[in-house]
Amino acid sequence: MKKYTEMNHDELLALKKELDKEFEEIKAQGLALDMSRGKPSNAQLDLSMEMMDVLKGDSNLKCETGVDCRNYGVIDGIPEAKRLLGEMSEVDPEHIIIYGNSSLNVMFDSIARSMTQGVMGNTPWCKLDKVKFLCPVPGYDRHFKITEFFGIEMINVPMTPEGPDMDMVEKLVSEDDAIKGIWCVPKYSNPQGYTYSKETVERFARLKPAAPDFRIYWDNAYSIHHLYDDNQDFLVEILGECVKAGNPDLVYKFTSTSKVSFPGSGIAAVAASKANLDDFRNYMQIQTIGHDKLNQLRHVRFFKDLEGLHAHMRKHADILRPKFELVLDTLDKELGGLGIGEWTKPHGGYFISFDSLDGCAKAIVAKAKEAGVVLTGAGATYPYGKDPKDSNIRIAPSFPTLEDLGKAAQVFVLCVKLVSVEKLLG
Amino acid sequence: MKKYTEMNHDELLALKKELDKEFEEIKAQGLALDMSRGKPSNAQLDLSMEMMDVLKGDSNLKCETGVDCRNYGVIDGIPEAKRLLGEMSEVDPEHIIIYGNSSLNVMFDSIARSMTQGVMGNTPWCKLDKVKFLCPVPGYDRHFKITEFFGIEMINVPMTPEGPDMDMVEKLVSEDDAIKGIWCVPKYSNPQGYTYSKETVERFARLKPAAPDFRIYWDNAYSIHHLYDDNQDFLVEILGECVKAGNPDLVYKFTSTSKVSFPGSGIAAVAASKANLDDFRNYMQIQTIGHDKLNQLRHVRFFKDLEGLHAHMRKHADILRPKFELVLDTLDKELGGLGIGEWTKPHGGYFISFDSLDGCAKAIVAKAKEAGVVLTGAGATYPYGKDPKDSNIRIAPSFPTLEDLGKAAQVFVLCVKLVSVEKLLG
Repeated sequence: MKKYTEMNHDELLALKKELDKEFEEIKAQGLALDMSRGKPSNAQLDLSMEMMDVLKGDSNLKCETGVDCRNYGVIDGIPEAKRLLGEMSEVDPEHIIIYGNSSLNVMFDSIARSMTQGVMGNTPWCKLDKVKFLCPVPGYDRHFKITEFFGIEMINVPMTPEGPDMDMVEKLVSEDDAIKGIWCVPKYSNPQGYTYSKETVERFARLKPAAPDFRIYWDNAYSIHHLYDDNQDFLVEILGECVKAGNPDLVYKFTSTSKVSFPGSGIAAVAASKANLDDFRNYMQIQTIGHDKLNQLRHVRFFKDLEGLHAHMRKHADILRPKFELVLDTLDKELGGLGIGEWTKPHGGYFISFDSLDGCAKAIVAKAKEAGVVLTGAGATYPYGKDPKDSNIRIAPSFPTLEDLGKAAQVFVLCVKLVSVEKLLG
Repeated sequence: MKKYTEMNHDELLALKKELDKEFEEIKAQGLALDMSRGKPSNAQLDLSMEMMDVLKGDSNLKCETGVDCRNYGVIDGIPEAKRLLGEMSEVDPEHIIIYGNSSLNVMFDSIARSMTQGVMGNTPWCKLDKVKFLCPVPGYDRHFKITEFFGIEMINVPMTPEGPDMDMVEKLVSEDDAIKGIWCVPKYSNPQGYTYSKETVERFARLKPAAPDFRIYWDNAYSIHHLYDDNQDFLVEILGECVKAGNPDLVYKFTSTSKVSFPGSGIAAVAASKANLDDFRNYMQIQTIGHDKLNQLRHVRFFKDLEGLHAHMRKHADILRPKFELVLDTLDKELGGLGIGEWTKPHGGYFISFDSLDGCAKAIVAKAKEAGVVLTGAGATYPYGKDPKDSNIRIAPSFPTLEDLGKAAQVFVLCVKLVSVEKLLG
């Protein structure tokens, strides 16, 4: 098929007529489909149902040091949970704190803590005139919402397939001591599915920030969330790199089992240097008497070790892979060569990132909604919800069934075509 | 026996000699007992073991509105959990938000939120020169630690058997707009076991604070934690009183099942006006994607309703009652009439409050430790750990077995006697 961008006015008009007709037909189906959030599907949740049976009414509920997990005590995680999430995070258990059910909550609390208490003895951010964060874009809307909520100024940094533009990161971070952090999803990034290259990680570890309390918020949400056994991305472990570079305190690494066991009923962890973890613990020991140790025990007894986690993630992959491939095939087949969009082809994670012609994303999302398909709001992948080019759309293929997803993907490509034609017609 | 305070020097010396001998004998036993924290005993934890079996690998894990509790969604609690904790809190489910495993965490977050975001549109506390809290004393050390952590100035308000000194509370709160809150454990208070009288609750509800963002932190931790079936304290429900008094936004009520099901693996809730809850929700929806709904479901399916909770608490009472009675009997028998201490006789909760002669509490706690019995640190029941009279000691009888508790109580009374004699000898 001819590139839309090379069509003349009459060709575009004829095409629009045809697409309008298709759209009315599809709209008449009254679909109600959702590709908006990175939610596991029911089939994926079913994979963990046996977890409900590992702790029984007659189980021994002591952790390996003999502490009764039913009672108060052990503020920063039972040893076996630290070991399991340590393996998942590729760090020693001593560099791990286990939290409650949400790593997002840990990130939020880290910002809240920095606001009122400051980072490792530095001035609390709420006492400063200006605090800024770097935001690789497109990125994760929930991250940006946190910094926005605390009135932190966000600066866009373009993403590349190798990670954020490190020339820009290095320059900004070394020049401006108001910059206190950067949001990163370093593996199978949200939404592009990119994995930071070795060079990117090394440059992160060697950063020389002007601010002593600058921290890299390394949200390794998809560390073991591969789609393929034989085509996996590899991410260099950053905490070790930071130590090597003489910057041991530079990074907070976050992880959780939310998309391994159950979203909302998983366990979360942070990995960092001892000095940073002491900062976390000082806050935590005032904030709570402790997190849910029974759920920690439940996870350890179900997954056992890293190999158990990997085996489990392969089952997730078997469910997710056909969904990603279906969407990608549809995009290739329907939009390939038309010059009206580009998209990523991730090897893991939860998202596909789509870039439309400039100024079309909002209209595409609105059009899809009109036809009964909910997409992540256009702009959501940018700080303040403002995509300067109005072109990025995050596609989340995980939740719908394959059948529904097929329909939703058809709606999506149709909306892309239609909105692009309208755009080109001017 | 003669009052110690009426003994002459020689009598006291003779007594000291005798007590010293007893102390050396008891010390030689090498005890290792703990009466320091309000931890449920193993027997109490065993009461909830069937909770481990209510959610199974083949259970339907949808809540009553059909939402799959395994997945993301439902930020502020599933309806049946709101109903259960609403019944426990004596408010409508619509005035309830369900949180994670710790009501202390919710209180902490409420202070943190007030610091950075302000209360219902008022100036964030971190932007104010001075923020103060009223602290009924003696009180709960964990409350005081939170306000201390955020640099909030704490003002002691004496407790009476009817609740805090309300003349003082009314005066301070109406005159000083830097006073933003008061910590209350209104029923079976920590550590005295007092329950606020009807008049006290009504006066709280009618407060006219100078600060529009003043809130009563009403930690109803022991609302259903009676020791007796027939001798229960009754607490007037404050949210309704506040509405009646035209002060609907004056109070945050906190509760949890930490000492009903499992400490650390329970569910927590806050009850408040819609305007306050919206404030909570605005924060929460940025802070997390949601709390552990499976644990909410587990609790509802295990306890079913308020009657189920009460039936369960009667089993707790059967275990706790003999422990309280053992300690109280020992205090009566060994210290009654000696003029060297006073103590409370609660009908519920987790603590007995003991007041020694002025200037003796630290020495008693140290002496007990020397003999192998750990008590809550003297001073812990006061802001900044400073008991101005050095006389209050919190006794927590719940965790040790009856046998151990008997020994610990004997050590305690011996230490009280010994330190009192030393004090009187000057």
